[in-house]
Amino acid sequence: MLPRLKRLLLGEPLSNQMEAHEKLPKWMALAVLSSDALSSIAYATEEMLIPLAAFSMAAVIYSIPIAIAIALLLIIVTMSYKQTIDRYPSGGGAYIVAKDNLGTQAGLVAGAALLIDYVLTLAVSIAAGVENLSSAFPYLIPHKVALGTVMIIIIMLLNLRGVKESASIFAIPTYFFIFSFLVMFGVGTWQLATGATVAVHPIQHETYPTIPLFILLHAFASGCSALTGIEAISNGITLFRSPAPRNAKLTMFWMSFILGCFFLCITLLSHVNGLVPKSGETAVSLLSRSIFGNHWFYFVVQGSTALILFLAANTSYAGFPRLSSLLAKDRYMPRQLASLGDRLVFSNGILGLSFAAIILLVIYKGQTHHLIPLYAVGVFLSFTLSQSGMVMHHLREREPGWVTSLIINGLGAVTTAVVLAVIASTKFLDGAWMVVLLIPALVLLFNRIHAHYLAVGRELSLGGMRPPGSLTPIKHTVIVPISGIHRGVIDALRYALSISSDVRACYVELDSDSTERVKAEWHRWAHEVPFVVLKSPYRSVIRPLLEYIDDVEQTTHGDLITVIIPEFVTSKWRYQVLHNQTAFLIRAALLFKRGKVVTSVRYHLRNT
Amino acid sequence: MLPRLKRLLLGEPLSNQMEAHEKLPKWMALAVLSSDALSSIAYATEEMLIPLAAFSMAAVIYSIPIAIAIALLLIIVTMSYKQTIDRYPSGGGAYIVAKDNLGTQAGLVAGAALLIDYVLTLAVSIAAGVENLSSAFPYLIPHKVALGTVMIIIIMLLNLRGVKESASIFAIPTYFFIFSFLVMFGVGTWQLATGATVAVHPIQHETYPTIPLFILLHAFASGCSALTGIEAISNGITLFRSPAPRNAKLTMFWMSFILGCFFLCITLLSHVNGLVPKSGETAVSLLSRSIFGNHWFYFVVQGSTALILFLAANTSYAGFPRLSSLLAKDRYMPRQLASLGDRLVFSNGILGLSFAAIILLVIYKGQTHHLIPLYAVGVFLSFTLSQSGMVMHHLREREPGWVTSLIINGLGAVTTAVVLAVIASTKFLDGAWMVVLLIPALVLLFNRIHAHYLAVGRELSLGGMRPPGSLTPIKHTVIVPISGIHRGVIDALRYALSISSDVRACYVELDSDSTERVKAEWHRWAHEVPFVVLKSPYRSVIRPLLEYIDDVEQTTHGDLITVIIPEFVTSKWRYQVLHNQTAFLIRAALLFKRGKVVTSVRYHLRNT
Repeated sequence: MLPRLKRLLLGEPLSNQMEAHEKLPKWMALAVLSSDALSSIAYATEEMLIPLAAFSMAAVIYSIPIAIAIALLLIIVTMSYKQTIDRYPSGGGAYIVAKDNLGTQAGLVAGAALLIDYVLTLAVSIAAGVENLSSAFPYLIPHKVALGTVMIIIIMLLNLRGVKESASIFAIPTYFFIFSFLVMFGVGTWQLATGATVAVHPIQHETYPTIPLFILLHAFASGCSALTGIEAISNGITLFRSPAPRNAKLTMFWMSFILGCFFLCITLLSHVNGLVPKSGETAVSLLSRSIFGNHWFYFVVQGSTALILFLAANTSYAGFPRLSSLLAKDRYMPRQLASLGDRLVFSNGILGLSFAAIILLVIYKGQTHHLIPLYAVGVFLSFTLSQSGMVMHHLREREPGWVTSLIINGLGAVTTAVVLAVIASTKFLDGAWMVVLLIPALVLLFNRIHAHYLAVGRELSLGGMRPPGSLTPIKHTVIVPISGIHRGVIDALRYALSISSDVRACYVELDSDSTERVKAEWHRWAHEVPFVVLKSPYRSVIRPLLEYIDDVEQTTHGDLITVIIPEFVTSKWRYQVLHNQTAFLIRAALLFKRGKVVTSVRYHLRNT
Repeated sequence: MLPRLKRLLLGEPLSNQMEAHEKLPKWMALAVLSSDALSSIAYATEEMLIPLAAFSMAAVIYSIPIAIAIALLLIIVTMSYKQTIDRYPSGGGAYIVAKDNLGTQAGLVAGAALLIDYVLTLAVSIAAGVENLSSAFPYLIPHKVALGTVMIIIIMLLNLRGVKESASIFAIPTYFFIFSFLVMFGVGTWQLATGATVAVHPIQHETYPTIPLFILLHAFASGCSALTGIEAISNGITLFRSPAPRNAKLTMFWMSFILGCFFLCITLLSHVNGLVPKSGETAVSLLSRSIFGNHWFYFVVQGSTALILFLAANTSYAGFPRLSSLLAKDRYMPRQLASLGDRLVFSNGILGLSFAAIILLVIYKGQTHHLIPLYAVGVFLSFTLSQSGMVMHHLREREPGWVTSLIINGLGAVTTAVVLAVIASTKFLDGAWMVVLLIPALVLLFNRIHAHYLAVGRELSLGGMRPPGSLTPIKHTVIVPISGIHRGVIDALRYALSISSDVRACYVELDSDSTERVKAEWHRWAHEVPFVVLKSPYRSVIRPLLEYIDDVEQTTHGDLITVIIPEFVTSKWRYQVLHNQTAFLIRAALLFKRGKVVTSVRYHLRNT
């Protein structure tokens, strides 16, 4: 039943040989890996405008220079990542780059930051996607959390099916988004140029009012959420067809170009059309409505925005499981996360990611604006660590052209570090403090897990032992707890006699009449096995048995004790509830005791 | 942690020797066993009045003759049960009497009816108790369900502690109830006699209006809920000190006398004071308020009413687990219900009862009036079966004085059968249909469970087998699945070699480099055990292993296969999540396969 459902939802298992084919051409990789970055423009402008508009309507003019600053930052970061792709052609996520060049702990910090960001990418993208839908269809507003949860589950199932199938499902919407936004920018500019609409705020330098620096920095920090996701390509080089590094760089440039242009266009058009943030409607929706009114193309823009945001969620599914698998292989996370599932995807990581994002969505009631402050800290921390790592790399390796690379990465490292400081300080009280605490907590956990695995390895290691001439067999005493005498007991006794000559049957006495009856029968059927009667003044079956096992252990000093439990298995699952679960209780009681082996000899009932 | 909490809530385990002392004197048994019956008067009058008042205010006068009819019915039923106690001195519940005299199926019908009624007694008593509290304190009305659930849980915990302790807790409230009601009747009569109040409806024969027979019968059927619970004493004779039958009969007479008088008094006083049912306030509360106004004694009456209703709930805890234990011992219910817990009470039955009653309470939102229609059907069905059984008993046994007894029980059987027909027909659409369907469903289930146990017994029976001269030992092949070579594996191999000479180690290949490494080490450490490499194109560890086991089974035809899994147990529970649960998966996969024994040889890590 369950396996069949799994096949239906996730498809047949894929063999190892198919892994190599799960590679993507550039145009498809752009769709899969850039949706996170591109979708940021759906909320970055709005987030940037909120602190400005909250201060004064006149302050909104600052969105233009701030957007230009962010675009410059984008160029610096893109250039920096080009260096990373050059030096790490098999995929240089911040974890690997930081670990290689700055040491393990720096790598773990980057890893923790990235894991948190993958979860937040998923949560923010889904929340923003649902908000753009509910801007167009306001009756969806009360169902935002439920809608978001369902979306996460759908995307999760697609990802459990495997990456190539999800890429082909997701390729069209990215281009659809690019197309619909180009149309919107074109029509909006045309309307302004022909005077069909009149600019509410024409851009004039004299209009800049005096406002506190903190407000400016806060707006800048919020706007930096536009940069989230641009690291996806350098993390995911392995998804590209060969030559992977070249294809990845080209794709990254295209992505940054589109992202920068779109972000500037939205900010500019929003400003000249005099739009300010409004509760219940996103900035994209406001802009699109002001250009198209209620024309059907308004709904096309909203639909394509929601779609690319749902795609952005998918980027997390490419990154999170891959990174946790890396961490697990290095023994910093539980090893269950290391292995590919039978559809060639890291199933456990996919499930964990979805679960964490759903929890965030529920806690923050699906509101993008409340999730954003948690978001950018981790992103810029990993940017900074990655660029600093590259700086160390160039200083050490001195490959051809290293000076230029050093300057570019140095600039990247310093810039992103400054931005990180701005973000962490201006957004600390809004929620960034949680991430600031969570990252060291995760690093601590990684280190403890690592220490555990190393210790287990040492304890289990054969180092220091001499290989024996042959393996010395064990002497053991066998105890068979019985509640009567029947075919299942006979089978268990035969099994017991075949593994040891010291077999004892134990009977827990609940009333003395039954004891006599069983004893008499015992003599007929199994006289060669000693029959031990255990009193049970408290009617517990388990306690006297455990006491007896302890006694035997002391008298046989050193022998291993095997407890053989005669069980019967009913032909149908549901019948099993009609039988006492004594075997289960005995097994649970002995689980943590040393030197005991518990074996169930099952008698399979045929008809009952 | 869990065991400690259990001790705190339920007390230390009691030894078997203490069981005999858990017997009650008459006055205490009256408190425990009659609360169900006495508490019925808290809702019976109200239920009787509702259909009459709904028809017309003038019809309310019929409550007097109907109450007298019900009192006569009470006398008949009490006399009948006296015969039962005489003939079944060790406790003659309807199940036993019907089974002995009318056959197993009649007994099961009575058993099903009683089980349902115990649940309803609990639900109705708690609901009515909470309603009487909320009549006095109306701000409790919105919290009725929560309050009822908490009460059930408290009473459940008291009962899990054991019967004697609960009796001593519960003795005082019963007498407190009797006392407070006697005061109320006295004051009410005194007020009428002295003219302090004037009767609104003086009783005059000319005032009876013409009303449909259905309304009369409906009122009668509802009023019969006054009789619920009088069977408790004949079911619970074993709780009495010796001479148990004599003490039980005396107690039952007292109980019926008090019940009849109180029921008549309440009905009469309600009528002459002109009280009619009112939503949000119980009949007892109306009467008490009309007599005492808001004097503090009003709160005494309400408190004592609520208390005795909570006590009535306790009657179910005496009856339900005892009856299900009887049914379980006769193999009609799961055998887990048969055994005494470590506090000498039937813990599983107590938990099941509480759970069912809470569900009813939630479904019916804690409203007594909606639970009542489900209630009386089962009670009168078990009365009828029990009395008919006694009739058969007298006809067959012809003990001294059997003719008188026959007449009494015959009258009882016919009367209760007629009442049953009246109740089932007038209340069918109000909810009695559920019980009418549920009883045969339960009987069917009992029979299927019984058939299962008989079939298991037959399959396991040694009958038809000849006792062997000695038990022939088994030949077996041992398979040890390994993922590498370490101390745990060495232990498992030593164990395997000690039980069989045919041991094979299986290694599932996930990548070929590791295979070579493990193979090389294998030769140093365990060259005497063949090393089998299994390919796994789908990265599953379990599937190749199962296929190999099937292969081995076919080539060794007939040998038992023991799978020995090397496991390691971490020193702390929480570390266990860091390790693959492969052993668990192998065990689960082999659970339903015949001829396989799965043994875990555990290596206990000391520090990790």
